[in-house]
This record gives sequence, C-alpha cells and structure tokens, in this order.
Amino acid sequence: MTENRRFKLIRRPHGIPVAEDFRLDRDPTPALEDGQFLIHNHYASLDPAIRGWMADEPSYLPPIPLGEPVRATTVGEIVESRSAAFPVGKFVVGLNAIEDYSVGRSDGYTSLIDPSVAPSLTHFLSAMGAVGLTGYFGLLEIGRPKPGDTVLVTGAAGAVGSMVGQIAKIKGCRAVGIAGGAAKCQRVTRDYGYDAAIDYRGKTADQISTEIAAACPKGVDVIFENVGGVCLDAGLMNINVGARVALCGLISEYNSTGPRHGTRNLWQLIVKSATIRGFLVPEFRDRFAEGAAAIAGWIREGRLRVDEHVETGIENAHPAFVRLFHGTNEGKMLLKLGSGG
Amino acid sequence: MTENRRFKLIRRPHGIPVAEDFRLDRDPTPALEDGQFLIHNHYASLDPAIRGWMADEPSYLPPIPLGEPVRATTVGEIVESRSAAFPVGKFVVGLNAIEDYSVGRSDGYTSLIDPSVAPSLTHFLSAMGAVGLTGYFGLLEIGRPKPGDTVLVTGAAGAVGSMVGQIAKIKGCRAVGIAGGAAKCQRVTRDYGYDAAIDYRGKTADQISTEIAAACPKGVDVIFENVGGVCLDAGLMNINVGARVALCGLISEYNSTGPRHGTRNLWQLIVKSATIRGFLVPEFRDRFAEGAAAIAGWIREGRLRVDEHVETGIENAHPAFVRLFHGTNEGKMLLKLGSGG
Repeated sequence: MTENRRFKLIRRPHGIPVAEDFRLDRDPTPALEDGQFLIHNHYASLDPAIRGWMADEPSYLPPIPLGEPVRATTVGEIVESRSAAFPVGKFVVGLNAIEDYSVGRSDGYTSLIDPSVAPSLTHFLSAMGAVGLTGYFGLLEIGRPKPGDTVLVTGAAGAVGSMVGQIAKIKGCRAVGIAGGAAKCQRVTRDYGYDAAIDYRGKTADQISTEIAAACPKGVDVIFENVGGVCLDAGLMNINVGARVALCGLISEYNSTGPRHGTRNLWQLIVKSATIRGFLVPEFRDRFAEGAAAIAGWIREGRLRVDEHVETGIENAHPAFVRLFHGTNEGKMLLKLGSGG
Repeated sequence: MTENRRFKLIRRPHGIPVAEDFRLDRDPTPALEDGQFLIHNHYASLDPAIRGWMADEPSYLPPIPLGEPVRATTVGEIVESRSAAFPVGKFVVGLNAIEDYSVGRSDGYTSLIDPSVAPSLTHFLSAMGAVGLTGYFGLLEIGRPKPGDTVLVTGAAGAVGSMVGQIAKIKGCRAVGIAGGAAKCQRVTRDYGYDAAIDYRGKTADQISTEIAAACPKGVDVIFENVGGVCLDAGLMNINVGARVALCGLISEYNSTGPRHGTRNLWQLIVKSATIRGFLVPEFRDRFAEGAAAIAGWIREGRLRVDEHVETGIENAHPAFVRLFHGTNEGKMLLKLGSGG
C-alpha cells in the first residue's frame, strides 16, 4: 500500500470556496478488485464546472459527497492493474479526483491515450481534452458559423474562449472577444488572433453593447457564451436575425450568493428569431477522436496556440482552484500532482 | 370625405400606458392615390406586442411615431378603391391602426379574405389570425412535440395559450397550463382541455417549480413561453434532456420600469442540452394558408374552442388595451370599431 494524498470536500461552499471547505487527507491506496486498475495521477484539470458539483443542486452529475475527494478529470499512468484492457504502463485520461492515486474501472469513464500524438501530456487536459473539444464542437456544431460571419465570444481569454476565437478565424469568421481587464484583452488580440477585444470590467450592459456594435459593424451571427449576466445581455442587443447562441457557461452567476442578475434581454430572441442552445461536451462523445485529430493538426501546423497555467502540488489545490473565479490564470488551469509527467 | 376617428399615441408610455398617453382625433379621410384603397375597419386586434411598438427601443417594427394612430391588425371592408386587386366590397385583414378608416396599399401588408370560410369575421383576428397561427406554428414547428410528450404553457388562459394547449392535446401530448388566478385556471382545464393548471399568483419560482414537478411526472419536453420571469425560471427547473422552449412572449417584463427580473435559470439549458428559440409568426408567412385551414377544420369539428373578448367603441381603446396587462380579459381581446361586422 502507498500513501495517497486526497483533496477532500468537507463542507458545501457558500460563494467562492474557502480553504475551510476542504481537507487534505493521507489515505492508503485500496486493494484492487477484478476489473480495477490504479492510476498514478500526473495532472488534474481545474474547471469552473467543479464548482457546480460542490453544490447540493441537481446537475448533470451527482454532487460530490462530503468527505470524498474533489472530482476532476486527470491524466496519469497505470501502476497496478487487475484489468487486461488497462495494463500497467499505459496512460489514461478520465473523470477521477484530485488525489495522487485513483482507482479506475474498465467500465468507467476512463480512456487509454497515446502520449506520442500530443506535444505534451497536458494537452490531453487542455486543447485535446474537454476544454478544447468544448470549443470545437460548441462553435462548429451549435454555433454553426459560415465564412464571413461575426462570432462574439465571452471569456475570450479563457481556456475555452481562446480556442473558440482561433477556430473561428481558421473557419474564415470575424472574431470579437470580451474579457476582463486590459491584460486579458491584449492576449485576446495578440495571442489568440481575435480581430477585436472588449474589456467588460466596470461597465453596464448598455456600455458593453455600444462597444460590441462598434466592433461588429455587420452585427453578431454567433455568440459563444461562457459568462452570462451583463455580457450576455449586451451580446443579445447586437444579434442578427437567425443568430445562434452556443451556451457553454455562465461563470458570472455560479458563485452568486444574492439574487442572480439573470438574463434580461431574451426578448431579442423573439424579434430576431434567434436561438440559445445549451450544451455539454459529452453530447459529442462519439466524435471526440475527430475533434482531437483536427485540433492536433492545427497545433502541429502552428495555427492554434495553447496556453496552460500549471500550478504545482496538491497542497495548492484550493488557491489554484479559486484563481479560476478571480480570473488570474493565463491559460487552461492545471494542477501538477505527482512526480511524473 | 368622411370623419375618421383615430386613436393616436401622443407620448411614450412609462410602464402600463395611461389615458394621457393617447388622444382621440377626428380627421378627414384622405384622397386616395393610385394603388390605394380605403378600408372601413370593423374590428381591431389588441395585442401585447403593441406595447413594444409604443417604446423607443428598436424592435422588429419601427416605433409608432408620436402623433400617429396606434398600429394594430384590423379586419374591414373596402369602401373606396384605386386598386384593381382590392375592389370595393371585398374584405381584408392587415396591419393598419386603431381608426375607423385605414388607407391600404396593394403592395402593403393587407390580404383579401373570404368571410364565408370562418364562422365569424372576428376569427380572422383570433384563431385564424396571427394569434392562432402563432400558437399553431410556435408549438408544432418550434416546440416540435411528439405524441406522449409533456407540453408546459405559460399564459395558458390567454389568446395564444388557449390555442396551444388544445393543439397539444389534439397532437396526443400531456398539456399543463400556468395562469394567474383561480378563475383562469378553471378555464384552462374546463374550457381548453388542459390536463392540469397551476396558479402562479403570489408564488416564487421555487414554489411554482414544485407544482410543475407534481403536474409533470415525466418532466417537461416542450415549454411554450408567453410570460417569462418566475414562470420561465420555474419551467426551466423541470425540463428534460433535449427540451425545446418556444419563446413567444415575455409579458411579465414588458411594462417593467425597474430592473427586469430576468431569467435566472438558463444554466438548466446547459445541463439538459436544451434550446430556447424565439420566433415571430411572420417567419411562417408562406404557410399561413395551411395553418388557417387546419385551425378552421378543428373549429368545424368542435375540437377547438375559440374565446373572444370584444369591447365596443374606439373611445374605449385605452381601457380595453390595458386589460391585457391586468389580465381581466377572457379570450382574444378585440375592439369593435365601426357599425359593421
């Protein structure tokens, strides 16, 4: 048996999670049953969705039980196995937890990966993982942009948003990004190739709307929405007839402890015959290989920039996670857990 | 020249329109130009959408200019004509105004009708007009219910909502209606054949949501939304995966003078891969004849009940219009203008 450090949820957070909502325990790794294997996790993906799993509210996954480690997607190496399909030495990506070792099951949500197809093992948690595939399928299948369309992206400097803008440009669209603060806006245009960036900080929906109108002289055909609140309200004021809103996230509302701001300009959907379609990336599970191959191709061709923000050490899990909500990470937020990778 | 009483907008309303926002003038009817014809209006349709046209905000139609009569759909008879296509004695329906006489143009939004195909001339402004066609195409083309689906309708006792529930039942669905007050709820189940009715008055979104869950044991597949606010938030909490929200109206927010309540549960669209699609009935213009024929057939077969609330006299235009927002009308709100009909 090996010591297994595990980052456990011990209290339901109120607003942005605080350190006291968690406890780092050192448990022994369990004995394996038939069909199980032991994964030595190298990296964990820190995603806003994890905040939703910490709540008691019904979601697309059950809440993380109190006393259990925080659920997260990890990439790691199989170090023990009682499953022929998952032999020792192979690498896997799967929905596990923030812990040194996870027990995988051959009938669970774990997939074998070939590290040689990606420049870095971390890419399986960023551009070629859920984040990248969310941008890829959300934009292309939900947003359905045509060449020449204008695509508006909120959270444009974020892990998903930075992918969406670059893919929109590859597909021949005008891409306009909304982000918080001058530094992020600079990255949006300089690093991710957006045609224009808008800083929403400290502005009302009306003010943001005016800036969108200036940056989108032909109106907005597709919104890729990560933020909600005043950003979505401002975007809706600029949509063209038949516009599509790919609703990926509403991060401005997830930690709200008072009444939510809500979305106040849905009437624009009526007068523009427009659509908001929510989605989760597992909807496209059957096409993940297609998406990952396209993304890997663009990375190799130098057409897609992938930024990762790696924090090190499971003892830093809490401060690393809350950076997502303070917006101080630059690129896909990852936590390096073990000694490998 | 004939005296033409005209109900004019003279001030942009703040909240629910007051009498001082309007003035009843007596103008002479104008001389006709080539291609024009004079319509003696028998009935005007009073619709919530008219409130939107009174505002300065951009909409799908330009605002009603101050000093001009209030735009409305009317049905009437041609009494003078300089258009061969629109001869004297024919009946027409079109987007005109609340006035005794309107000038029509052969290239405008006016259509010839045959009064003999409908039990009453008023049906061209109710079940076979924009109201009925809105329910028909909104439910069947945007909501796309399958037999056995559960359809939730807000404003279920209203002109559109009463059609939607009856058509949902004709199509083999479970229909659950939300309405304001016990009397309306009684009409929803007794007169319009809904399986259940929920009174939203004085309740929070959480309370309404609990009642929807009880009335929809298999969840909600289609929402036909006329109201917005807490009703839409409550409905969203009960949707099934892949649900469709046909967004027809947001009447609870049209007269809002403070911050709008907004829609706070859009996150449900994400976790349920669901869609909100706004629409306006002109989108289906090419299929109006098909829809009107289907509706006329159901009326003749006794499968579709049509309630109309007719107020009489152009001098009552203001109190009749505001009844829409106080919810005291029972059936499609019409104003009888002239002596005919």
